[in-house]
Amino acid sequence: MTTGTATAQAHPNIAFIKYWGNKDQELRIPVNGSLSMNLDGLFTQTTVTFNTFFPKDSLTLNNKPITGAGLDRVTGILDLVRQRAGMNTSAEVRSDNNFPTGTGIASSAAAFAALALAASTAAGLHLDEQQLSILARRGSGSASRSIPGGFVEWQAGADNDDSYAFSFAPAEHWNLADCIAVISSEHKPTISSQGHTLASTSPLQAARIADAPRRIDICRQAILNCDFEALAAIVELDSDMMHAVMMTSTPALFYWRPATLAVIQAVRDWRSEGLPVCYTIDAGPNVHVLCPQEYVETTANRLRTVDGVQEVLVSKTGGPAKLV
Amino acid sequence: MTTGTATAQAHPNIAFIKYWGNKDQELRIPVNGSLSMNLDGLFTQTTVTFNTFFPKDSLTLNNKPITGAGLDRVTGILDLVRQRAGMNTSAEVRSDNNFPTGTGIASSAAAFAALALAASTAAGLHLDEQQLSILARRGSGSASRSIPGGFVEWQAGADNDDSYAFSFAPAEHWNLADCIAVISSEHKPTISSQGHTLASTSPLQAARIADAPRRIDICRQAILNCDFEALAAIVELDSDMMHAVMMTSTPALFYWRPATLAVIQAVRDWRSEGLPVCYTIDAGPNVHVLCPQEYVETTANRLRTVDGVQEVLVSKTGGPAKLV
Repeated sequence: MTTGTATAQAHPNIAFIKYWGNKDQELRIPVNGSLSMNLDGLFTQTTVTFNTFFPKDSLTLNNKPITGAGLDRVTGILDLVRQRAGMNTSAEVRSDNNFPTGTGIASSAAAFAALALAASTAAGLHLDEQQLSILARRGSGSASRSIPGGFVEWQAGADNDDSYAFSFAPAEHWNLADCIAVISSEHKPTISSQGHTLASTSPLQAARIADAPRRIDICRQAILNCDFEALAAIVELDSDMMHAVMMTSTPALFYWRPATLAVIQAVRDWRSEGLPVCYTIDAGPNVHVLCPQEYVETTANRLRTVDGVQEVLVSKTGGPAKLV
Repeated sequence: MTTGTATAQAHPNIAFIKYWGNKDQELRIPVNGSLSMNLDGLFTQTTVTFNTFFPKDSLTLNNKPITGAGLDRVTGILDLVRQRAGMNTSAEVRSDNNFPTGTGIASSAAAFAALALAASTAAGLHLDEQQLSILARRGSGSASRSIPGGFVEWQAGADNDDSYAFSFAPAEHWNLADCIAVISSEHKPTISSQGHTLASTSPLQAARIADAPRRIDICRQAILNCDFEALAAIVELDSDMMHAVMMTSTPALFYWRPATLAVIQAVRDWRSEGLPVCYTIDAGPNVHVLCPQEYVETTANRLRTVDGVQEVLVSKTGGPAKLV
């Protein structure tokens, strides 16, 4: 092959039961399973072109050339693809997000899911969903969950081949929405990949892990039953448990800002007044506020009134990574 | 005896290693030991008068008559005193704080320490420090720590008679100060006594308890060595661990407000710039910022510039509860 090209789109996902900490850091095999839904309104689009005339791999992200650690991480995935396809051709990777990066909207999840699909296709491979999820995971753990569509479970697994994500309910199963209260679009001080290595320094991480199967069962069942009240309780507990571990790591990781806490408190107040909303927060200051679709307008409007909320992005449940 | 009166003063205390959760709720025997220092600048003054002409116990707190649960809790202590003294005389209790109540400055600690000393003395008892600490504990767990002076350890103990506090270093041992950033003087939504009963609902509480002896040893040693850096690390970790348990209880307890988090972040930034400060937070929104005495002015002035800080109270290390 002298050339091959493919373009893929993938959504970020919001975890209901969080991924935090690896049992194998290099392979990104997590200490606990996790659950998420894809975010329809947001996506990364990535084009990979292999060409024997390229002297080396290159990466352009949102129109900016990227070198160093960012490019190395992409080359790591390209190497896995090249190895599998039996080739050593360099690639040009061009990736664009329609949402701000580095704010806890898990841009790396969408990015590595799109990359896994585009790169493997451009190399002439035909990977199934499970193989794609495993490949995406190698770039960013949560990217494994952006390969399948709808409501997704990532089983922790024991080794590379059985740590992958699958859909347990399609996007149409439940009209859930995510109203993302954007607190800051600054780059976060500690990126998730580094944070994962600190998880085991928290005296609370072992308890979080030990309790994870229980939380996953409750959360999966709440989704299958479309039971918002049950979902709210377990999603907030799980998010708070992850941030508890982060804040009690050495060094301590504080992703919350004052406005993050203001949104948490507002959401808890609104729910106690009868509005079906709950919050969950990834490794960043933004707050994902979940609600049934019919409450999106009320929720988004209220969020815009909270001090420190810069904008609100709204997203429905999204489908799988796909070629375009 | 037809009449007997005594007046006592006691300081609140700030815990470096926190008390959260009881193994015996009624006796207030804690699940873990704790460490604290008394706060010199703040105190409760309480006068107890037994008189056979009083038809029943009465309580006046900051010039307001108190009935109901507040009075019942005081009567509980008076009953223990009367039982021990072999009397059944009613008492008039008058108590005044020189600091705002219900804001997480542990007013109940100072209140029940002063009450234990004043009531037992007014009843003609001569209790030693250990017996006073046990008696105070029955009214409010952390009150056991406001009986001895200086730097105090409350050993959890297994039963009523060996759950008490003692001084392990006098107030003069180390010139530490507490700059209390007052965020709100509103009454807190869940008082500590109720919160303790929820601690065991957190999936993280068992891990917090299991790790407590390690934290106590590190903290005690840091104090004995006057090692601020070591103190800062363990005090912040312990405070964050307690709030982690609170936030992951069912129902969840959030004592932090947006301004609480702003102070946490400011303190962490200032320390990374070289100012020896650290934070610890009780069951309320206020932030206790510890520093060596010579940094009090800088610290208090900086705290006053943080959005949402209403005032800053400054306190040195205080002595034991005493008769006045």
